Parts: sequence; C-alpha cells; structure tokens
Amino acid sequence: MASQSSDTRGPLTRFAVALFPGFQALDVFGPIDTLNMLSKQTPIHLDVLAKTLDPVSTRTDKSGHTAFETIVPTRTFADYINASANGSNGNAKDNDIEVLLIPGGGGTRDPDNIEEVVDLVRAAYPRLRYLLTVCTGSAVAAMSGILDGHRATTNKLAWDWVIAQGPKVNWVRRARWVTDGNIWTSSGISAGIDMMYAFVGDQYGADTASKLAFASEYVRNTDPDMDPFAGDGTNGVKKA
Amino acid sequence: MASQSSDTRGPLTRFAVALFPGFQALDVFGPIDTLNMLSKQTPIHLDVLAKTLDPVSTRTDKSGHTAFETIVPTRTFADYINASANGSNGNAKDNDIEVLLIPGGGGTRDPDNIEEVVDLVRAAYPRLRYLLTVCTGSAVAAMSGILDGHRATTNKLAWDWVIAQGPKVNWVRRARWVTDGNIWTSSGISAGIDMMYAFVGDQYGADTASKLAFASEYVRNTDPDMDPFAGDGTNGVKKA
Repeated sequence: MASQSSDTRGPLTRFAVALFPGFQALDVFGPIDTLNMLSKQTPIHLDVLAKTLDPVSTRTDKSGHTAFETIVPTRTFADYINASANGSNGNAKDNDIEVLLIPGGGGTRDPDNIEEVVDLVRAAYPRLRYLLTVCTGSAVAAMSGILDGHRATTNKLAWDWVIAQGPKVNWVRRARWVTDGNIWTSSGISAGIDMMYAFVGDQYGADTASKLAFASEYVRNTDPDMDPFAGDGTNGVKKA
Repeated sequence: MASQSSDTRGPLTRFAVALFPGFQALDVFGPIDTLNMLSKQTPIHLDVLAKTLDPVSTRTDKSGHTAFETIVPTRTFADYINASANGSNGNAKDNDIEVLLIPGGGGTRDPDNIEEVVDLVRAAYPRLRYLLTVCTGSAVAAMSGILDGHRATTNKLAWDWVIAQGPKVNWVRRARWVTDGNIWTSSGISAGIDMMYAFVGDQYGADTASKLAFASEYVRNTDPDMDPFAGDGTNGVKKA
C-alpha cells in the first residue's frame, strides 16, 4: 500500500485529535471512525488530546444541549507541546504527531474553552505534516494565525462568525473541503467524513479509501468543489 | 413541534445507547450527533449504558485496531434492567428509557462481550417505545429473539454471519434501513445516520429532520429502499 503523496517520510502513522468542551461529536467520530478502520491494516497511533486527562464533554454549560457524551483523552496539550519543544526544528521525531485534526462545535465560540486549543495549533503546526480541520475547527486554526494567506473553508451556517476570526484568510465558500499545502479544511460537520476519505486516498491510495467507504456503506462526495450547502438555497443539489 | 407519530404518549425525550467493547464509533456518533443537535430545541435525555461505569473502548484485544477511542458511560445495564423490573407492565415510567439504540462493530462477534447486551435488549424491549439498531447491532437484537418474525436489515459485508444469528428473522438485503412496528434496523455503519434522520422526521416532524441535516451539511438518503451496497457490484449508484 504505497503512499500517493510525494512526501518521502513514509506513510503517516501518528494522528491526533484535539478535544475541548463543546466539540461536535460527528466532527470527531466521522473522520476518526475511518482511521479506526484503516488501523486494522495500517498501524496508526491516535492520540486524543485535551487540556487535562479528564473526560471531555460535547456540551458546555452555555451550549443548551441536554443530550451529550464524554470522551476520555489520552494525552494533554501541555505534554504534547512540551515534547515538541525539545525538537521543534521542523523534523518530526519518531514519536511526534504527524497529523492533527481540529474539530468544530459550539465550544469554539467560548474564549475560555478555545484559547488553549489555539495555542496548541500554533505550537504544533511547524512540526506537523498535515493539519486538518472540520467545521468551525477552521476558526480555531484562523485564530492561531496559521491560515493567514491560505485558502480555507468552514461551516456555512457559522460563516460570518468564522471569517471574522481570520480576516487575512482566503475563505472559500463553495467547497466541501479545501486543500492548501499541508492544510486541509472541511465544511460543516458531515463534510469532515468526505475530507477524511479524500485524505486517506491521497496518503494511502484511492483503492484503500474506496474500500473503507464501501465497508462503512458510505456514499462519498469525492468532489471538493461540490457543495450543496454553499448558500444557493438548494439542499443536496448542485446549482447548474 | 408536534409528533408525527400516532402514539399518544407525547414526544420522545428519553434515549439511550448501549456500548460494549469493540463498538463501531460511527454507529453511535452518527445517529447520536443528530440527537445532540436536536436536544438544543427538545429536552432529550441520553443515557450511555454499559456493563460498568468504566470507559468503553471501540477496540477489543482481538479486534486488530491500533487506533481507538474510549467513551464514558452514564448508567450500567444492571441499573437500568433492575429499574425496569419494578414496573415492566408495558407502561413506561416517567424516568424510563423510551428509545434504545444498539450499535454494531467487531465486538458483536465476541460472545464474552455481547451476551450482556443481548440480555439487555431482551429485558428492555417490552418497556421500550422504539428499538433502533445500526449495522451488526441487528445481530445482537436477533440473538435476543425479539426480531423473530420481523423484517430487519444489517451490514452487507457481515451479512452471512448476521443472518445466521437470527434464522427466524425476515432479513431484507436491499435496504438502507427497515422499519417493522417499533423496531428500526439500519444497514452498515453510515446507514445509521440516514435512519436517525428518518426517525427524527417521523417523531418530531419532517421539517425538524431537514433543518438538522442542513445544519450538519449532510446529504441524506431519504429512501429506505435505496441501497447502493446491497451487493449488485455498484458503489453509490442504484441498479436500474
């Protein structure tokens, strides 16, 4: 299973997702379920990062949700950042994270919740091979400054708020997902699933991605420019 | 927001999902993310049931996954079953679970893991208003005997194994999901998302389901008979 990427550092094996109170569950478990399945054939390690090792809830006191779930982290932001600080010369250490996924969710709008995730993204980015965001996760990346001058997309219902977080970002409204260098950003919630299949296809081969989607009985949107939610009043049908 | 159901007991507000080692993450968080979102407008309570209150992993020692996540339960099977036993006359108590979701995953094939989930389904079903299964979750329901004589579907790659668990079930191969009375069963993994939107539409109104899918930027399959994975060799295209 050869990498389709031109990167000479070998196939990606070290992933992480960053959680914070009020993260959107499907932003995380849509893409990550694909990685879980991939890990039966490729030895992927996945860190679940959070501020502390306490379980992290999909709700916050302000979110208004009465249904919610809590997930157990495996590593703290500080542990990762401090480990990175010992070798932040652009060469990933053998045990360093190569791909960081930042989900969105209502919690991104709470400065008290999100400041440390912004700091995490800023500290991590120089050492990552790829940064991936889902939904309003791109607002977090924008706050960190690393999206400045780059193309990116986000959730369409949260559009006005997100783009205000990154006035120097080249925001692309009609997109299921956007790639710019080693930064992949997806549109709202469910779009993260399509982005991850595309990312897996890019890194591990189109056939691998197709087989995983088939096993998940998932009908992919394989066209990053096909976006039924861009705001033309349709729902599921591309404007001619 | 009126219920579209003919049930006179009022809108559903008490949901639960049953976890076991080796559950498939998207089987749970696809449908449940929709409930989380719905809970901002309808006061849904969601119990995360498990054998104990220890966090439950998406992997088992036998599963071969190197990437996995662990989720925190809120209530044990025994606590729920014992509470049910005090009033199992078909009338839900005010604090009883009305809708139980059984996910699938590799863990369903491990008798040591799944026996207690089978017992849970058997004990819970007479008191539920609805039982929903995703993927090989229908195998668990079949093992309990409650699917005997009912129509049901399941994951297509696991088809032969699942139907062997319920020889008296009327298995429907070409289906995104199947409804039979108060039992809803979906096909593999991602199909649970479509089933849940249909269920939400049935219970809380089509407009509510459409708005939630739009907010999630999800392109629904709204046709329960539209199944690109039924085994006709296509992937994502319905056979004419």
